[in-house]
Amino acid sequence: MRWISWPSEDSVVATHIKVILDGKEERGSPGLALKIARVRDLLAADFLLVVDGPAHFTNQPTLMFGCRGMARLTLTTYGPAAPQHSGHFGNVAPNPVFALANLLTSMKDDRGRVQVEGFYDRVVISPDERAMIDAAPDDPAALRQRLQVPALEAVGSSYQEALQYPSLNVRRLRSPLFEGARTIVPDRAEAEIDIRLVPETGGQELIQRIAAHVRDQGFYVVEREPTREERLQHARIATVAGRLGVPPFQTPRDSEIGRFLVAALQDEYGEPPIQIPLMGGTVPITPFIKLLGFPAVIVPLVNSDNNQHSPNENLRLGNAALGIRTLKALLR
Amino acid sequence: MRWISWPSEDSVVATHIKVILDGKEERGSPGLALKIARVRDLLAADFLLVVDGPAHFTNQPTLMFGCRGMARLTLTTYGPAAPQHSGHFGNVAPNPVFALANLLTSMKDDRGRVQVEGFYDRVVISPDERAMIDAAPDDPAALRQRLQVPALEAVGSSYQEALQYPSLNVRRLRSPLFEGARTIVPDRAEAEIDIRLVPETGGQELIQRIAAHVRDQGFYVVEREPTREERLQHARIATVAGRLGVPPFQTPRDSEIGRFLVAALQDEYGEPPIQIPLMGGTVPITPFIKLLGFPAVIVPLVNSDNNQHSPNENLRLGNAALGIRTLKALLR
Repeated sequence: MRWISWPSEDSVVATHIKVILDGKEERGSPGLALKIARVRDLLAADFLLVVDGPAHFTNQPTLMFGCRGMARLTLTTYGPAAPQHSGHFGNVAPNPVFALANLLTSMKDDRGRVQVEGFYDRVVISPDERAMIDAAPDDPAALRQRLQVPALEAVGSSYQEALQYPSLNVRRLRSPLFEGARTIVPDRAEAEIDIRLVPETGGQELIQRIAAHVRDQGFYVVEREPTREERLQHARIATVAGRLGVPPFQTPRDSEIGRFLVAALQDEYGEPPIQIPLMGGTVPITPFIKLLGFPAVIVPLVNSDNNQHSPNENLRLGNAALGIRTLKALLR
Repeated sequence: MRWISWPSEDSVVATHIKVILDGKEERGSPGLALKIARVRDLLAADFLLVVDGPAHFTNQPTLMFGCRGMARLTLTTYGPAAPQHSGHFGNVAPNPVFALANLLTSMKDDRGRVQVEGFYDRVVISPDERAMIDAAPDDPAALRQRLQVPALEAVGSSYQEALQYPSLNVRRLRSPLFEGARTIVPDRAEAEIDIRLVPETGGQELIQRIAAHVRDQGFYVVEREPTREERLQHARIATVAGRLGVPPFQTPRDSEIGRFLVAALQDEYGEPPIQIPLMGGTVPITPFIKLLGFPAVIVPLVNSDNNQHSPNENLRLGNAALGIRTLKALLR
C-alpha cells in the first residue's frame, strides 16, 4: 500500500493491517474457507472491512452495515421421458415448458411481489434501519431511465427498502438442457433461481416455503430426478433442489466500529457518509465473519452502474480515486 | 438400386424413376428449391413418393396422404435494458422471465389445448379422413408408457386425430440469451415456438392470431427490438417475430396415385397398408410439390420411436428390411 503517506516518527502507533485478497471471488472462492480456518489466529483483529460491492448510486462515500445472503434453487419440470419430434408429437406429448411457466406465473404478481406464502413475513425494519433508509438519497426516476423500464418492482417503497426484503430471481431459464433449437418437444424445462436472504429469514425456511408453494399448485414434488413409476403416475412433477449458499450478515451502526467509520469518513469529507443497513448483493466473505468472531462493515468503492456479472462490466475512474481517498481516511 | 431384381425381358416397360436425394434436409435443404426450379422439366413425372418420416408405430406398411406444414415464431419479453446484478437489483429490476411465463401460461390449458382464439377453428375432418383415423390402430396406453406420462395432450381423441389439428410447441426456452448462469436479472427472455400447420389453416393467420392473443394479455407488441422510448413507456413489451416455413400438403386417397399405392401394398402384404390422412411432421419437400405440379404421397419407412432430432436417434433394422420390401413392391 505505497500510496499511504508515512506519519512522522513520533505519531507512529502499533496498528496492524491484515489484508485478505481474494482473486477467485467470482468463482465462489474455492479453498478460501479452509485457508482462513487454518490461519484464523493470525487473522485476529478488532474488525473487518469488506471492500466489495458498489457504492451508493450517487458515488458519495458509502458505508454498508451488512449484506443479503444467498440460497439457490433449481426448479425442473418434466415432459416426455426423451425429447420428441414436435411434428409427430405436437398435440400429443405434454411440453414441460408450460408446466414451468405455470409455476413461475404463480410465484410473482405483475408488480414483482413474491406470492409464496410467508416469503416476506419475518422482515422487520428497525427504527435505526428506517432512519438510514429514509436518509439515503433515492432517485427512482433516474433508475427507471437507466434500466429503461416505466416501473420498478413494488416490493419496497424505495430502492434501499426493497433490499431489506428477500428476493426471488430467475437467473437462468432453459429448455431443453442441451444446446441448439431443434424442432422437438423438450423432455424437461429448468429455472435456476437465486434467493437473496436477509438476517430475519433462513435460506432453508424459504426453500421449504417455495417447495410447499409448488406442491400447492398441484405438483408432485421431489428433490431429485423422478423415477419412471413417478412419471407414469403424476402428470405434474417438479424437482425442487435447494442449495444453501452464503448467509447474510449485519453489524449495528451503533457499535464501536460503526461509530468509528462514520466519524472517520465525516472527518475526511466534511459530511457524514451515506449509510445503508443492508447491501443487496452478497459478499462471499460472510461465511468467515462468524468464524473470525469480530464485526464487519462493507466499504464499497465501485460505481453502481458497473454492469457487474454482465457484458460491459466497468469501473468508473472517479471511483478509483475516491476509493483511495476513503481507504486513506480510514487508515489514518 | 441394385436390390431390385430385374424383370424378365418380355415384361420390360418404359418406366422412368427419378430420384431426388437430399443430404441436407436437417439443415433446411439450402439451395434445393433453386436447383429443383432449374431442372423442373427434367423432373416431370406422374407422381412423387416422399420417402421420409416415421411409419405407423406398429411398423406395418404405411401410406400418408400428406403432412402438416410449419411456421415459426420467436416470442421475446424484456426486463432491464442490460442484465443487472440479482443482489443489487433483486426486488427492483423487473425480470422478463415472469412476463414470458405469464404469456406461455395464457396460451395453453393444463391439458395442452391451445387457448389462442380461433386456433383450431377452420379444421374440418372429412368422412374419408375420419374413416382413415378410425381404421388406424391406436394404443394410447403403450404411447403413455413410452413417453412416461400418465396422460397425453387432449387435442384429439386419438393419436391420428390430434395430428389433424395445428399445434403450438415451445422448442426452446432461454433467458438470458448468452451462455452461463450468473447471478443476474436477465435483460430478456425468449421462447422459440413452432406451429404445425394443417391444410385448412395458413401460417400467416395463426401467427397473427398469436400476436393478437399476446396483445390481449396486456402486452405492447412489436415485430422487432423495442426502442428506448417504447421500453420506458410500456411495462410489458413482447416481440412477436413470425417466419413462414413450409406449407402442408395433402393428396386425396381417392386419386389415381392413392388407389395405385394402396393396391400395390395390399398385393405385396396380403392386407391393406395403414393409411394416414396427415403425417404430424413436416417434410421439407412440400414447397416443391406445388412447383412440380403432380401429386405426392409419403411412404414412411423408419420406426416411430427413432428419437428423431434428439439424442440417441436410431433406425430399427427390421424397418430397413421392410422398407426395401415396400419400395420393391411399389416399383414392380
